[in-house]
Amino acid sequence: MAVQQPTITLLISCPDQPGIVAAISSFIFRYHGNIVESDQHSTNHAEGTFFMRISFTEQGFGLKQSELVQAFQPIADRFHMQWSVHYSRLRKRAAILVSKLDHCLVDLLWRWKSGELAMDIVCIISNHPDLQAHAAMYNVPYYHFPVQKETRAEDQQRMLAFLEGKVDFLILARYMQILEPFVVQAYRQQIINIHHSFLPAFVGAKPYERAFERGVKLIGATAHYVTENLDEGPIIAQDVIHCDHRDTVEDLIRKGRDVERRVLAEAVRQHTEDRVLVYANKTIVF
Amino acid sequence: MAVQQPTITLLISCPDQPGIVAAISSFIFRYHGNIVESDQHSTNHAEGTFFMRISFTEQGFGLKQSELVQAFQPIADRFHMQWSVHYSRLRKRAAILVSKLDHCLVDLLWRWKSGELAMDIVCIISNHPDLQAHAAMYNVPYYHFPVQKETRAEDQQRMLAFLEGKVDFLILARYMQILEPFVVQAYRQQIINIHHSFLPAFVGAKPYERAFERGVKLIGATAHYVTENLDEGPIIAQDVIHCDHRDTVEDLIRKGRDVERRVLAEAVRQHTEDRVLVYANKTIVF
Amino acid sequence: MAVQQPTITLLISCPDQPGIVAAISSFIFRYHGNIVESDQHSTNHAEGTFFMRISFTEQGFGLKQSELVQAFQPIADRFHMQWSVHYSRLRKRAAILVSKLDHCLVDLLWRWKSGELAMDIVCIISNHPDLQAHAAMYNVPYYHFPVQKETRAEDQQRMLAFLEGKVDFLILARYMQILEPFVVQAYRQQIINIHHSFLPAFVGAKPYERAFERGVKLIGATAHYVTENLDEGPIIAQDVIHCDHRDTVEDLIRKGRDVERRVLAEAVRQHTEDRVLVYANKTIVF
Amino acid sequence: MAVQQPTITLLISCPDQPGIVAAISSFIFRYHGNIVESDQHSTNHAEGTFFMRISFTEQGFGLKQSELVQAFQPIADRFHMQWSVHYSRLRKRAAILVSKLDHCLVDLLWRWKSGELAMDIVCIISNHPDLQAHAAMYNVPYYHFPVQKETRAEDQQRMLAFLEGKVDFLILARYMQILEPFVVQAYRQQIINIHHSFLPAFVGAKPYERAFERGVKLIGATAHYVTENLDEGPIIAQDVIHCDHRDTVEDLIRKGRDVERRVLAEAVRQHTEDRVLVYANKTIVF
Repeated sequence: MAVQQPTITLLISCPDQPGIVAAISSFIFRYHGNIVESDQHSTNHAEGTFFMRISFTEQGFGLKQSELVQAFQPIADRFHMQWSVHYSRLRKRAAILVSKLDHCLVDLLWRWKSGELAMDIVCIISNHPDLQAHAAMYNVPYYHFPVQKETRAEDQQRMLAFLEGKVDFLILARYMQILEPFVVQAYRQQIINIHHSFLPAFVGAKPYERAFERGVKLIGATAHYVTENLDEGPIIAQDVIHCDHRDTVEDLIRKGRDVERRVLAEAVRQHTEDRVLVYANKTIVF
Repeated sequence: MAVQQPTITLLISCPDQPGIVAAISSFIFRYHGNIVESDQHSTNHAEGTFFMRISFTEQGFGLKQSELVQAFQPIADRFHMQWSVHYSRLRKRAAILVSKLDHCLVDLLWRWKSGELAMDIVCIISNHPDLQAHAAMYNVPYYHFPVQKETRAEDQQRMLAFLEGKVDFLILARYMQILEPFVVQAYRQQIINIHHSFLPAFVGAKPYERAFERGVKLIGATAHYVTENLDEGPIIAQDVIHCDHRDTVEDLIRKGRDVERRVLAEAVRQHTEDRVLVYANKTIVF
Repeated sequence: MAVQQPTITLLISCPDQPGIVAAISSFIFRYHGNIVESDQHSTNHAEGTFFMRISFTEQGFGLKQSELVQAFQPIADRFHMQWSVHYSRLRKRAAILVSKLDHCLVDLLWRWKSGELAMDIVCIISNHPDLQAHAAMYNVPYYHFPVQKETRAEDQQRMLAFLEGKVDFLILARYMQILEPFVVQAYRQQIINIHHSFLPAFVGAKPYERAFERGVKLIGATAHYVTENLDEGPIIAQDVIHCDHRDTVEDLIRKGRDVERRVLAEAVRQHTEDRVLVYANKTIVF
Repeated sequence: MAVQQPTITLLISCPDQPGIVAAISSFIFRYHGNIVESDQHSTNHAEGTFFMRISFTEQGFGLKQSELVQAFQPIADRFHMQWSVHYSRLRKRAAILVSKLDHCLVDLLWRWKSGELAMDIVCIISNHPDLQAHAAMYNVPYYHFPVQKETRAEDQQRMLAFLEGKVDFLILARYMQILEPFVVQAYRQQIINIHHSFLPAFVGAKPYERAFERGVKLIGATAHYVTENLDEGPIIAQDVIHCDHRDTVEDLIRKGRDVERRVLAEAVRQHTEDRVLVYANKTIVF
């Protein structure tokens, strides 16, 4: 998290077999990269999958960005890797999408300003004009993109066109609109959503009222990547907060805000630091 | 929890209206009871319900057990109360039901022996003979009541007959048999069960495998009173434990054991201390 | 906390003896007060102390504010009570004191604006001009009161004079100045401070660096009332967050901010809702 | 931890420099080891220290145990490594030392029996005879080694002689005797202790009573390696549990037991799986 020297991070997944790590680390060594962080994980079955996140200092590394891709590709081919490379000095560009609830937005803006989130917030987009003042406070452009039920596809098409080429990922900070499949496909595994979670689960409207009626002792929040199946994408982060019979519905909502903003910020931080690998419908968070 | 002087505890619920607390505390005062703990709760709506747990020292109180009931009934009638009275020196009598998994049983036995749980364990009942040694270690009778799918109703009828008059409540410490409705009815709000909980929920077989596949970041446990609707009775206690992609299915099971035994023990403790009131399908835990 | 009907809250402590609760609840009943929340606690020793918080609806209660004090005083005298009365519609008036770190301030302002904290923020006072923009964002007056080491007593005297009659309590939201005893005395049990906590404790400068060197696995925060003994006043709220060897000093500081702002907000909420009673050097938080 | 195929684990620390990982993983690859888990950490300063834990399957690996040491030593020399090698099928041999409190012992025995702790419990040693029955329940030899204040050095010398060659590490499961320096030196970083922790810290006798008087809202536990400085060795694991004014001293002690046994078991598990590296006075727990 510190203000550190610029690093290059490789995210790799491939069928597991001996020699992968040796090949990767030898490659980095050959070009004088100094590894500062390395994590790997295997799914541990006969035909397992191997995952790796490895970061090394950019300074002193002997390959330019374009050269690195070319030089590493033969290794990637040999091991049938899916891989990506990330330069920490090239911060990811985010758009935050919100509706009327401000708790996640305010928290993200403050954390970003405090240096906790290594990203550029290109803009805030909302289907309501209400939260403009928060954007102004932090000098972030705020765009009002109304969405009508009848014209949702067109409205979102317009939004998508606006964002094109400007941002790398989207943060749904309590954006109360279902995204059209073409939006999800345009930002595959690049849209982070937050939603409440309860034990047991309450599907449908007014979940806090229903949780209250059921007398739950915990409420939680789940941050996940958005897929075409609403609220069922790969989970990035989760947490809960305790409650009891003294908590009114309003208390549950207040506690829900607390856990939602904390979990969303954690997921965004991990995403911006290239710590999340998606595999099937789950995540590896290094 | 302390080794305390014997107390008398009243559990009361009734339609909310002014004067209830004054009437109750005046009654206790009139007979020289010294209140040591008092909690109340209102559901806070126009036609709200009032809940109270009030404990006072038995020593010096001017009414015998039989007299108390008679003397308090007019107050109960006036306010349309549902109420019960509990003497701490009359410990509740429990039967623990188990199958083959021992983690909840071992934990309950040790806590009970350590004085954490103010109850008498009358017996351990199992549909398997496996855990007899633990019972012997703590000098608790262990009875093997086999259950066959085809004869479940008869088998449980036999068990019920055996328990009749011997125990006040049942603890399902990972008892892997569905209870027949007549058992549930014989011990209404007197059967405590523990089951795992996940966010999101996984219904059906092999929940840990499915949670693993989904990459959950939390696993939890819920202790509840058993009703005719499996796993949907009033929740007494809940907790969770964090996990991540490094956790194997076996790790999840291990962590699940930890949170299950902790949550079950907490629910049992609250039940034995007369801290739980059931209302609709939820609990008030004072 | 819900937008509720106005309530009157009594906070009471006195030597424990039979009849206290009956006397109080009879008093409320006599004047048609409808009790909505009631908690009590006894220190449970021979010569124990009794604590109570009892809230009833203001509407319909038969005594005006001035009459209540007069009417209740005989009961208070009879039981040797220390007591206070609080009207929820008379919100407490707070001054927030800050230096340069903004995390607690930003969080308090947002929670206050969101309706979580039932208080009026009269002003923000700082020994630095840095955080003025946050105050402006929420339309709260910001006053810069520089403090010099050589003139600290005079500087704080000036600040105290400025606040006199304007505010009921002070929130030290990372105010990096030691308060003079005369300030503490002017707001006895009305100044809330937040500080980091570690296991084991690290006294002195650069605590996060020292915690990092020691490899702690937890960092925490403590909110307490300020007494003449620095950081040793009655504890209102505490919490921790897990950390490990991967956390840099900067990560520890980031996590510390998270737990500090959460714990301070919780303590302020409890204080504004008249939930905290101080006894000896500890608190009862109802 | 799953019942897995046998692995070989290398624990390594050395001055950080490029090429370490490449050298290690190339070595493993050369002898056909299949890496199943790998973690590394750098202290991230100019003259940083590098830490690594790397596990690979024993089956198929081309070097026998004696050959491995010889073959790896040149790499170790080149990078000035401190290193050790661990075979998972060679379980560590533990002695558990207890006095009269049984909560940690009972929990360790059950977890060990359940397969959570990959160690052999060679014996239980106590300065009291009280807990013999628990040892018998799990078929573990129990030895009573009385310790007298006047003869403590001799008594512990006798115990040490008895243990010599029999055990690899010691678990102090609430062993209420200060170990003589010669015991600490005989098992350097091989003695795990558990002690309570409070925020703020309470040094001296009756810590729970003093925490109660101070009104703490959290109690915790710390597991650490024993050094000559009592309770100040490298921390392996820590956790806390919430409490409030309703908790009596006895409740605090009960909660303390819960967190102590949980934290000690976690530390023992990490130790037995060779996940802990000690550096200066801190640990890296992979």
